[in-house]
Amino acid sequence: MVITFLTDFGLQDDFVGTCHGVLKRIAPEAQIIDITHDLPVHDVRAGALTLVRAAQYLPDGGIVLAVVDPGVGGARGAVAVQAGGYRFVGPDNGLLIPAAEKFGGIDVAHELANPEYALESVSRTFHGRDLFSPAAAHLALGVELAELGPPLAIDALARLDLPEPEIGASRIKCTVLAIDRFGNVQLNLDRSHLDAVGIVPGTRVELQAGPERYYAVAARTFADARPGDLILYEDSYRNLSVAINGGNAAAMLGIKPGRDLRIHLEPS
Amino acid sequence: MVITFLTDFGLQDDFVGTCHGVLKRIAPEAQIIDITHDLPVHDVRAGALTLVRAAQYLPDGGIVLAVVDPGVGGARGAVAVQAGGYRFVGPDNGLLIPAAEKFGGIDVAHELANPEYALESVSRTFHGRDLFSPAAAHLALGVELAELGPPLAIDALARLDLPEPEIGASRIKCTVLAIDRFGNVQLNLDRSHLDAVGIVPGTRVELQAGPERYYAVAARTFADARPGDLILYEDSYRNLSVAINGGNAAAMLGIKPGRDLRIHLEPS
Amino acid sequence: MVITFLTDFGLQDDFVGTCHGVLKRIAPEAQIIDITHDLPVHDVRAGALTLVRAAQYLPDGGIVLAVVDPGVGGARGAVAVQAGGYRFVGPDNGLLIPAAEKFGGIDVAHELANPEYALESVSRTFHGRDLFSPAAAHLALGVELAELGPPLAIDALARLDLPEPEIGASRIKCTVLAIDRFGNVQLNLDRSHLDAVGIVPGTRVELQAGPERYYAVAARTFADARPGDLILYEDSYRNLSVAINGGNAAAMLGIKPGRDLRIHLEPS
Repeated sequence: MVITFLTDFGLQDDFVGTCHGVLKRIAPEAQIIDITHDLPVHDVRAGALTLVRAAQYLPDGGIVLAVVDPGVGGARGAVAVQAGGYRFVGPDNGLLIPAAEKFGGIDVAHELANPEYALESVSRTFHGRDLFSPAAAHLALGVELAELGPPLAIDALARLDLPEPEIGASRIKCTVLAIDRFGNVQLNLDRSHLDAVGIVPGTRVELQAGPERYYAVAARTFADARPGDLILYEDSYRNLSVAINGGNAAAMLGIKPGRDLRIHLEPS
Repeated sequence: MVITFLTDFGLQDDFVGTCHGVLKRIAPEAQIIDITHDLPVHDVRAGALTLVRAAQYLPDGGIVLAVVDPGVGGARGAVAVQAGGYRFVGPDNGLLIPAAEKFGGIDVAHELANPEYALESVSRTFHGRDLFSPAAAHLALGVELAELGPPLAIDALARLDLPEPEIGASRIKCTVLAIDRFGNVQLNLDRSHLDAVGIVPGTRVELQAGPERYYAVAARTFADARPGDLILYEDSYRNLSVAINGGNAAAMLGIKPGRDLRIHLEPS
Repeated sequence: MVITFLTDFGLQDDFVGTCHGVLKRIAPEAQIIDITHDLPVHDVRAGALTLVRAAQYLPDGGIVLAVVDPGVGGARGAVAVQAGGYRFVGPDNGLLIPAAEKFGGIDVAHELANPEYALESVSRTFHGRDLFSPAAAHLALGVELAELGPPLAIDALARLDLPEPEIGASRIKCTVLAIDRFGNVQLNLDRSHLDAVGIVPGTRVELQAGPERYYAVAARTFADARPGDLILYEDSYRNLSVAINGGNAAAMLGIKPGRDLRIHLEPS
């Protein structure tokens, strides 16, 4: 049984290794795949979006353990949900929902309430170790979801407010979802949004983030653009992204996750 | 058999992966849990404290491989010690001792002196790869501790000089042990020290690091404080830490590991 | 079967975890050793040099999956090569060659052209996930190299242009290959180059990187030098490196990978 694991715990402390220890104490045969633990701290949305990207490539029928909590706020629930043969374990703050919905929607959700499947002493500040890791490990051992606690109404689960793009006649207003290690800028757009305004490979557009505008060209791949050119392309996860052939697009645009980006169709 | 692994080698070079290679060449069935490899370089004390935190969550009866060496200094021994069913392998510089003592104290210690359980050629500068990883892997295969080399007197093992707090009538002088990814500040205190001066949840105190003082409140958890408030709380490892609801306490206090912190009981 | 894995993908995105997912979907029994994923982005040479260092410590007969591509440039091939019992999978850009040659040279090379051993949809920008990981996983399952695609002429494989040192009567001009986490500066030299100009342990030299010169001493190990002294030594991979006892040599010399360094034999 494979447990995939995603958090904002970072790798400099013992947090991730300690959770691996807890998982392996309970389920010695489980295999653990670390998706990432270097998410921006407290950024539930970044965690949800990273998880939804990775989810389709995970081993069939696995268990997904994900933990990101916001830096402020009070209590939130702890849940396990079933979606399309996968089981997700984590906080009830929206983190798990987009990935679970990618697998056809949530079939059933249960609260993590049974102390038998948690560590003996559950701290107030490290549920990843004390509550979520033990639950995931017990699922890997064959425990049923329903044994973890009472069922929850699916439409009562917390959901994230994900930004929607505004598609105008000659302008798209979209939001930067993420910036990857290479400086590629992932937008909350897919190809259908470009189709709607008639942007096809070869179309020249202007990108605006703040006061300045930059020329860019819609392209199928980096090789279709000259070095130094900004390109708007469908990335390998079928999201639209902005990249620069031979450079760092995010640095050039001076842009960060969460910021708006406007795509102007050039006057022809 | 599980080998847990902790170093200051970082993840950008091949050092950690190369040690994994050595471990798997010798003990293909061993499973490896990486606690962390991003310890501050050459910081033996940080390594020892991180190990002691993680140790209680490791799989029973495992092998702990830990390597941190100071940046200066001459030769130091190489040891394997047994403590409470766990075996620890690493340098004789104090790194292993606090975790080993957590398991009830060291039962027996042996020098790593048998070339049969090291790589054929042992370099002067990478004992992690050439000496410690092979010893740990051979232990995982069932080699006895005593086969690794001659016994060492337990009280002759090098020990770290860990800072002790000073508990006054109206003031505690303590030391910052570590700062985690979230900016939480771990102190060399536990709840007994607060009890001794009458600090209970709800007590207001002042924290002083350098010339400035900051109000803080003793609290059970973040949710007991308003956003922006500094809190003094028992963390999930039962150490006392300073945190800030919705922020980075270390950045606010301008404090680093090794620095002193004074806790003043407020004049009532 | 062990698959070792090296990329410049970084650990903050899902890229590495997603590739682990693909590997484990296809070859659930394969074990994965991550050499590093924090190579400098787009630095094929750094990847090749890191791989050649680690390669000799990998489990016998394993599969090596390595992916680093330059930031610019058009299409490049995708290959699998056999060398001394190991199989290497990655881009045809020179990345794999130095490590393969370390194992006695390449026996055979095949293009990755058989869609049966790739993901159903191969993106233009993430061959690591869609092409290289599936090929490596299928090799781990027992697929023969020749099934992956047509053979390639070995001397037609792309090769890196690695810098060669210039050895003069009283001066060596060499290049910084890499700087590790501890600030040690790896040069494109081995001991034979020092022997050629008569540098032996104890010899004093001057190091020049830019306008300034620094005294250094050839030494067997850090312990042979005083704290603060620069030393020139044979590192644990049998390369020559510059280090400083108790400090960061790269920071002191103000040097970066790819830069030239001159070693002057002192006037006696």
